[in-house]
This record gives sequence, C-alpha cells and structure tokens, in this order.
Amino acid sequence: MVPRFFVPDLASAGDVARLPAGEAHHLVRVLRLGPGDRVQVFDGHGVEWRAQVKSADRSGATVALLEPLEPRRPSVDLTLVQAVLKGEAMDEVVRDCTMVGVASIRPVLTAHCTVKASTMAAAPERWRRIALAAAKQCGAARLPEIGSVVAFDDHLGRGPFQSAFILVEPSVASVPLRIRQLASRPVPPEAVLFVGPEGGWTEDERDRAVAAGCAPLSLGALTLRADAVPLVAAAALLGVWDE
Amino acid sequence: MVPRFFVPDLASAGDVARLPAGEAHHLVRVLRLGPGDRVQVFDGHGVEWRAQVKSADRSGATVALLEPLEPRRPSVDLTLVQAVLKGEAMDEVVRDCTMVGVASIRPVLTAHCTVKASTMAAAPERWRRIALAAAKQCGAARLPEIGSVVAFDDHLGRGPFQSAFILVEPSVASVPLRIRQLASRPVPPEAVLFVGPEGGWTEDERDRAVAAGCAPLSLGALTLRADAVPLVAAAALLGVWDE
Repeated sequence: MVPRFFVPDLASAGDVARLPAGEAHHLVRVLRLGPGDRVQVFDGHGVEWRAQVKSADRSGATVALLEPLEPRRPSVDLTLVQAVLKGEAMDEVVRDCTMVGVASIRPVLTAHCTVKASTMAAAPERWRRIALAAAKQCGAARLPEIGSVVAFDDHLGRGPFQSAFILVEPSVASVPLRIRQLASRPVPPEAVLFVGPEGGWTEDERDRAVAAGCAPLSLGALTLRADAVPLVAAAALLGVWDE
Repeated sequence: MVPRFFVPDLASAGDVARLPAGEAHHLVRVLRLGPGDRVQVFDGHGVEWRAQVKSADRSGATVALLEPLEPRRPSVDLTLVQAVLKGEAMDEVVRDCTMVGVASIRPVLTAHCTVKASTMAAAPERWRRIALAAAKQCGAARLPEIGSVVAFDDHLGRGPFQSAFILVEPSVASVPLRIRQLASRPVPPEAVLFVGPEGGWTEDERDRAVAAGCAPLSLGALTLRADAVPLVAAAALLGVWDE
C-alpha cells in the first residue's frame, strides 16, 4: 500500500500541502521518502488525495496534490456511545471501530463501569492517537470524532435521539429488534448505537435510553467478549445498511 | 459467570457425567471447586446443562446434571473456508469465529498464502485448543469443527456449494452482492463463506470459486485488517440471517 499521511487542513490547501510535524518526521526519518515519491494524504473527514513528495528535509515536508480519490466510507454516519471498558479493551474498541468506519465515538460512564472518572482525563487523547494510527493502517479516509468521557446521564441529556439503538441481551422483557428487521426499513443517513460495559446496563439506564428514543436491539444468541461487541454490532449494522 | 466445562460425551451420559482429565484438573486444582458447587457443562455440539459437582479429587471429577439449558447458537450453520493467515492472525480468526458462532472452519492454502503447508501439520490441533478455550470463555455451547489444512483446489473439489459466498473487493468486475440484499432472500439452514488471505484471491481462484457455486459478496467500502475480515463478515451474515 502507498504510504498515507494525515493532513487535517487538506480541504483548504491549494496544489501543495504541508505535512504536520509528526507526519513529516515519519515521512522523512522513518520511511526515508524524498522528492518524487508517491504518497497519499487524507484529512480524516473523508477527503483523500494521491500526492507526490515535493520537498522533504529537516524543516518539514510538502506534497503536491495530484488527484482526489474516491472516499471509502460507509453510507451511514454511525455514532457509537460506548460505556468505557477496562484497560486495553477500550483501545481495541477504538481501533476496531475506526477500521470499520464509525463516524464518532462518545465514551460514557455507566453504573457498571469499573473505571474511575478521575483516570479518564488523558484517555481521549490516547484514543485519538490510536484512531489515527488505525486509520492510516487500514486506509480509512475518515477519523472518528472522539469525545470526552462524560456521565451516561449527561449524554442522555443530549437526546432525544433519532435512529438510535441500545444493544441489549435478547432476554430483556420487551422483545428487542433484530438486525434482519432493519433491512426492511429505509437506510437512515445517520444513526446512534449505545453499547454497555462488561457488566451490562442497569434496568434504569435501559429504560431511560429507551425513553430518550433508543430502540432495544439484540444480536441474538451470541455471547461476545465486551471488547468485541461494538465491532460486531457496528459491522452488522453497517452491513445491513450498505447499499 | 458460572464456570463451564467441556464434556464431549454429554449426550450419552446419564444423570452423572465424568469430566475429561484436563477439565477435571481445571475444576479441582485451578478453580478449587468441590462437591455441591454449581457449574455448567457443554458438549461442543450445542448441548449444555446446569450441573453440580458430585465428586472432585485426585482421581477426577464428576457432576450431577440438573437441568438442560437453552442452546445459544446462530440460526444458520456457517462454514468458514479461510485462507490461512500469517502467524497469530489465524489464531485470532479461530478465537473470534468461535465466539461469533461459526459452525465449522476449513483452513485452505491459496496462491497468495505466505505460510508453508509443511508448517501446518500441528496447527489444526492448536486451533482446536484455542476454539475450546474461546467457547468456554464466551459461553458458546458449540465448538466449530476445524478441518485439516488443505489446498484450495482440493477444497473446491468438494463443491458444488449451496448458499456459498466468496468475499471480494467491491471493485471486481462483476457487481458483488451486498449484505443488505441477502435480507430479502430466505434464510438458508446452512451457508459457506470463502475468505482470502492478506494478499487476496487470484482472479483464477475467484473464477473457479464462482464456477463451484460461490456468489461474490462485498462488505462495501471498508478496508479491514485481514484478521478482522472473517469476524466482520460472519457477524454481518449471521446478523442479517438472525430471525
């Protein structure tokens, strides 16, 4: 694969774009590329160009933009509202969901989350770095927007939500939707998916999410690791909405 | 979660089942369980029981079977025909696909596989151990049947295949199926999914798979890591078939 570099202000660049310092370092020092080498640059919002290194030295790197590329992104802007998982599990979620093309990730703290809010201040910055690395590696032209960690209640206050789903066990009282049923409904332009922590939702959290517009959704008979649930659910949703 | 133990001959057991040596060791020595403790036992083919330890000592362990449990398994028996991936990637595939409920895994060697057939003799036994560990952990009542590594051609010779799909890039000549289109077709009782290696299929392999009954299927705009493709594809298929 052609090396890819992240240039956030690509949309406002003319024929030539300057790489941010970190990306220039990677191009010059790590990959040892120089004038004439072919690369790709992307802005994390779906814009991507075929490009050629114009200058590359100690002071930085510039590339000539040659040709825009067809963005590779899902047809639905999916927001993942994810209860923060323990340790590295949340890093995996960010990596996987970037790869699968989730548009934004909203980390929330729920009653059964075992992480402490006080340890979460630096986490979103780390997750953004993980998302960038994942996007560069897998060819995603879009970076998910990653919010700060907020309390579940605070996030619910942003509702009511449209085309929103809360992932639940198939055994909960009201019969949840199944992925297959979504295929007979129109594809929404954007959607929201709430995914709980290792210990699941409390009944109260579930009820309030439903009151805020979330339809209960079940993946059926599967018992998944908590860190695999968002990937599997996002893949199933984006699959059934892929036209 | 209640500790789960694998007892292959559960179907032929009476009221009491004896655990295999490795499982008994785990019960007695690792988890230090004893008479009266509640456990679950499963046979890897979908049968699972609530049980209670009856005896547990140096010579082994037996459990009294109390009540059969509703098996948790997908409605479709999905066979994954997977080109062997490099190093630990294939282990991940086995772990993930066990979790998601794939019924069998058929490892094949294709033109672009970078592993050597000669190094593959012991691999299926390792993958079966990985599948067992994954099934115990995630609560799957079924173990995927894992075949020996065979050449792609040998596997194709077992065709023609019914309800079979070969995962391809969306850019291939003939327009591939999308997951959403499958929702308007009847749910098959069983299905086969061919997934290629890191370097993809050759055109010839693709053509011959199609001739053997495989419909080209695309996940759309996503660019996934090769080791995540089987999980994402299986999740999307089992999702759209989940009734």
